[in-house]
Amino acid sequence: MPNGFKASGIKAGLKPSGKPDLALLVAPEGAVCAGTFTQSLVRASCIDICIDRLQKNSGSARAVLINSGQANACTGERGLLDSLRATKALADRLGLLEDEILICSTGVIGLPIPIDRLISGLDLLIQELSHEGGSAAANAILTTDLVEKQIAFEAYLDGQRVRIGGMAKGSGMIHPNMATMLGYISCDAGLPADVWMTMVNRVVESSFNSISVDGDTSTNDACLAFAAGPPLDKQYIDILEVGLKKVVDHLAKSIARDGEGANCLLEVEVVGTDDDFTARTIARTICSSSLVKTAIHGCDPNWGRIVAAAGRAGVNFLPNELSLWIGSYQLIKGGDLLDYDRKLISDYMKERRVGKYLTDDSISILLKIGNGQGAAICWGCDLSDQYVRINADYTT
Amino acid sequence: MPNGFKASGIKAGLKPSGKPDLALLVAPEGAVCAGTFTQSLVRASCIDICIDRLQKNSGSARAVLINSGQANACTGERGLLDSLRATKALADRLGLLEDEILICSTGVIGLPIPIDRLISGLDLLIQELSHEGGSAAANAILTTDLVEKQIAFEAYLDGQRVRIGGMAKGSGMIHPNMATMLGYISCDAGLPADVWMTMVNRVVESSFNSISVDGDTSTNDACLAFAAGPPLDKQYIDILEVGLKKVVDHLAKSIARDGEGANCLLEVEVVGTDDDFTARTIARTICSSSLVKTAIHGCDPNWGRIVAAAGRAGVNFLPNELSLWIGSYQLIKGGDLLDYDRKLISDYMKERRVGKYLTDDSISILLKIGNGQGAAICWGCDLSDQYVRINADYTT
Repeated sequence: MPNGFKASGIKAGLKPSGKPDLALLVAPEGAVCAGTFTQSLVRASCIDICIDRLQKNSGSARAVLINSGQANACTGERGLLDSLRATKALADRLGLLEDEILICSTGVIGLPIPIDRLISGLDLLIQELSHEGGSAAANAILTTDLVEKQIAFEAYLDGQRVRIGGMAKGSGMIHPNMATMLGYISCDAGLPADVWMTMVNRVVESSFNSISVDGDTSTNDACLAFAAGPPLDKQYIDILEVGLKKVVDHLAKSIARDGEGANCLLEVEVVGTDDDFTARTIARTICSSSLVKTAIHGCDPNWGRIVAAAGRAGVNFLPNELSLWIGSYQLIKGGDLLDYDRKLISDYMKERRVGKYLTDDSISILLKIGNGQGAAICWGCDLSDQYVRINADYTT
Repeated sequence: MPNGFKASGIKAGLKPSGKPDLALLVAPEGAVCAGTFTQSLVRASCIDICIDRLQKNSGSARAVLINSGQANACTGERGLLDSLRATKALADRLGLLEDEILICSTGVIGLPIPIDRLISGLDLLIQELSHEGGSAAANAILTTDLVEKQIAFEAYLDGQRVRIGGMAKGSGMIHPNMATMLGYISCDAGLPADVWMTMVNRVVESSFNSISVDGDTSTNDACLAFAAGPPLDKQYIDILEVGLKKVVDHLAKSIARDGEGANCLLEVEVVGTDDDFTARTIARTICSSSLVKTAIHGCDPNWGRIVAAAGRAGVNFLPNELSLWIGSYQLIKGGDLLDYDRKLISDYMKERRVGKYLTDDSISILLKIGNGQGAAICWGCDLSDQYVRINADYTT
């Protein structure tokens, strides 16, 4: 982990499955924290606590407690009191102020946290805190995820070693409108809070806010990014953002790739629009289309569904200037359908569909619309029978 | 069918399956036609032809030719020329002006119509025209539909018998933003074109535009409503609209009920908002949520997904004033979760899930948000493994 950061993850007995379910991330003194949260009107009280405390402390925070198994959303006053009790108990044990502690929950909406068990687990959780605890924490925040989502990035900037670490969770109810499910970033360079917040907001927009698994925005989405360490020279701030973008892109793609029931990562790039926002709107509509997603699942180069999704995205473009590629195969040029080898493209899709956890491969769609400077990339996944079974058979 | 209207449907050899694929609806002289069409930017040229001709003729039209199997969308200039050739050939044979003929296509996007076969079929199609031809036509416009969608409504208004007939098709790519897939209404009362158009637009908004099967808006959506007959006394216009609404509601619900892979009709009613638009936005978001739809499929009263979908609908409300019913069972009252019998509600859902074609039953969700006068009902269906198989295995 980045210098001065510690983490831990334990089994506190919150999940019926008995899997790890409680995580802690502690940042060094002086840390600033940039938080981005769900835009849903129906949100968990832990989200309100985070927003409130970060505002009150102008972006200072020292630790975040994360439980998995219960979202503690739509649990009324009890949910709020439980979250407050948990952060108070943790603050007392860590010798910090209550306001310096943040809290996130993920799991079944409507279920409160078995709060006594959580509090009983705090001593062990603190005892396990270590500089090498990132994996344990990344594991303890998972729900329907099949794999952990972690990454670390290191660069030497004029002799100063700067590290950025990140972990995330998310597999279903993924269509973030701010930041997805749970994402945690730590960075051991010191930056003014406003510079860090602006940077985090910008990279979250083109990463977590550019993925979709099922079109459903969660009640508990949160991304918290901590930075603490020797002040970074101004000239390196742009380079740090490049590194930060690498970290959040990786985490966002990991979530899409691990979408419930998914077999592949879908990458949709839209270029040539008037602005990036237009490109992102089209790319996200394509990524979210059930018909595109089932075609991807069937390895069917069904371009009609792709252009139909673009057409209903609610933004303006000229259909007869449209060009489309799947992988490196061009299907449409300036609105005209080309002769293309259906089998070849289907084979390309089949090949990319297998590599879910093996490679960094994706099935790529490129749509060129006009000659503008706008561009965006969004990520999604295929829609499989397995997705239906996961979500029809279990209360999540 | 309503007085003076004729229809027919035949096998013209357009569909590889050999099923009926060409339909014709002819309205009596003097008919006015109200058309509502897809809002997608990527739309078939037949849609442009309809819009253009209805505008040119101030809403007069005499016939509509409908082929199924090929959407003839994204087929460039050839697609346009084929559609023009078909309407010209039909106009010649019927002794009508080309501009009085409308054309609609449904099927695979990107596939042109085997136009010579269509034209060879026109003589038989005209020969089969009859007052009893509604069923044959309703059958010939289907694609992945499992059942025909038809209805007739009759009322005596001060001794004048008024009939409204309707047919529709649609099963996938259903999330209309104007009118869904294909809907045809005929009415044997005479009305001024502007009165009829206003009435049709109003009822389409709360019927076809209030259903969703998979969130994907089609390139070929069209609803054409013809009216021709003895002028209706002004005092009966409101009653006619009641009848018209019954007809289109029935057709819209038939489409949602016959959604690809669906096992039931989902009815979501939202009340208590400031205006109807807000209520409709929330109801449609719930109907379109993959997580709500899979929960319905699993007969799981997963209320958390319902309120989460409402929360992300993009409209404002107070979550702590929310009340929720599934069927007649109340789960949430003024933001607080009530004690409810999970099994009882699941049994209610199971019972309603079986009756797809047997009954008029639906699984009902009622959400009360605040105390405003706004209200809306939207319809959808469950999301099943079968939906994924239908759309992953076949190019549609």
